[in-house]
Amino acid sequence: MNVRSYRGLFYRNGQFSNVSDTLAIEVGLSISINGIPYTVTMQTPGFEQDLVRGLLHAEGIYREPGPHPPIHVTCLDDDGFITGLNVVLPPEKILRDFAGTRNVISASSCGLCGKVSLEESEYPKIEHDDLMDPAAVGLMFDRMRAAQESFERSGGTHAAGIFSLNGDLISIREDIGRHNAVDKVIGDILNTGQHQNASCLTVSGRVSFEIVSKAHAAGIPYLASVSAPSTFAVDTADRAGITLMAFCRDGKLTVYAHPEHMLEIPLPLTTTR
Amino acid sequence: MNVRSYRGLFYRNGQFSNVSDTLAIEVGLSISINGIPYTVTMQTPGFEQDLVRGLLHAEGIYREPGPHPPIHVTCLDDDGFITGLNVVLPPEKILRDFAGTRNVISASSCGLCGKVSLEESEYPKIEHDDLMDPAAVGLMFDRMRAAQESFERSGGTHAAGIFSLNGDLISIREDIGRHNAVDKVIGDILNTGQHQNASCLTVSGRVSFEIVSKAHAAGIPYLASVSAPSTFAVDTADRAGITLMAFCRDGKLTVYAHPEHMLEIPLPLTTTR
Repeated sequence: MNVRSYRGLFYRNGQFSNVSDTLAIEVGLSISINGIPYTVTMQTPGFEQDLVRGLLHAEGIYREPGPHPPIHVTCLDDDGFITGLNVVLPPEKILRDFAGTRNVISASSCGLCGKVSLEESEYPKIEHDDLMDPAAVGLMFDRMRAAQESFERSGGTHAAGIFSLNGDLISIREDIGRHNAVDKVIGDILNTGQHQNASCLTVSGRVSFEIVSKAHAAGIPYLASVSAPSTFAVDTADRAGITLMAFCRDGKLTVYAHPEHMLEIPLPLTTTR
Repeated sequence: MNVRSYRGLFYRNGQFSNVSDTLAIEVGLSISINGIPYTVTMQTPGFEQDLVRGLLHAEGIYREPGPHPPIHVTCLDDDGFITGLNVVLPPEKILRDFAGTRNVISASSCGLCGKVSLEESEYPKIEHDDLMDPAAVGLMFDRMRAAQESFERSGGTHAAGIFSLNGDLISIREDIGRHNAVDKVIGDILNTGQHQNASCLTVSGRVSFEIVSKAHAAGIPYLASVSAPSTFAVDTADRAGITLMAFCRDGKLTVYAHPEHMLEIPLPLTTTR
């Protein structure tokens, strides 16, 4: 099964309540070819031999017909999900050089294993004493949407915004690439020296590990999305001290990590699975 | 302006009509650091110095405070958009090795320029005599949605499906990564030898250049998405002989490339900008 249940705090009409939500599992997967590291991708576990076959075909590395080439699992994580594998290809059937042509996620721990380290040294916890009003988060999304010029015209771009604690818009950027929009909005506040007031990163899409990692690198303690988080996004936010809010729509939201930095939390509530 | 108008053929209630739609612009951008190629990303033009600053910060390569480092444009495309740039960093401020750590899109033409070649040699046109019934496309999305187990439970995964010309489901895969879902579904039909009947690739999200490129590599002549295409997705589909349908919802769809392979096209209609 490639989903897992997480506890969250659901906010609506001024009140929080406990919920249990089913989130899509995200794990790192390192792919080697004949023992040479090729790429690390974040994926939902399962069908790894389909992923490898399709990727190598699309990238023009291996396009032979017939059954899939042999795959050896090199690493598993604590849940038994594959985080490293090696595919064995006949050298004469490899159509082009592949070493160093694909991304390797910078946080990954080693070339053979896609298991991303969440050691404290990698993700030192963001410490702060702020409290976020959930009503302010609704305002942020209203303001981001109002500023999404490209989306209004094309329906084809993602947006990322940066807001102060009280909901003032500091910057917004749109891009066809989800990660680009986040890089651009963080780059803007770094370039213009406005990062001191940056409290909340808002994103129009889903929240994966890499989005949380970018917020952490920028020292932004709140992350809010319109859509769903992955399991690993929640785990990373928990480690990194980031208050993660998702499904922020119509004045509602669900907090999956660090709810102690929200206003109006009435109970000793937990968000861990 | 980072959107552009394209002509499409809008289908509803058994009839096609001409429409003009505004699509988000997608171009390749090659980023070099001190003259050394670092990465190629597909992006919406604009705010390139924010993109570079945010990306280098997130990746832990450059984290100095202050204004953005100098950027020199190395390549422009025919529309004047930046497709290559070089950022100049003091070598002693570069925090880690960066060469060969990020993806370089395999189709890109050179290390200094992100301009992706659409030469015929790169994208030989898929030739076929099929005609797709637009009503069958609606059925495909109904069937894909019915098979999306993870999405039903988590709301957090993308799906890709492969269908025969008459709308029979051949394979479906779900993944937190849009590209992974496409690689997995294509890998499945390659692994099981079902690619002869593969006529249409359906995707749950938006259509970017890379999705069209993957369909082309697999020899699939129809591509249909629930959401918006980028400009470069349309241009690539046009070159590659792929009939591109987008905004496929509630029995409606819009064809942006190669409408001559659709049933019920009544007019000498064009889809070029």
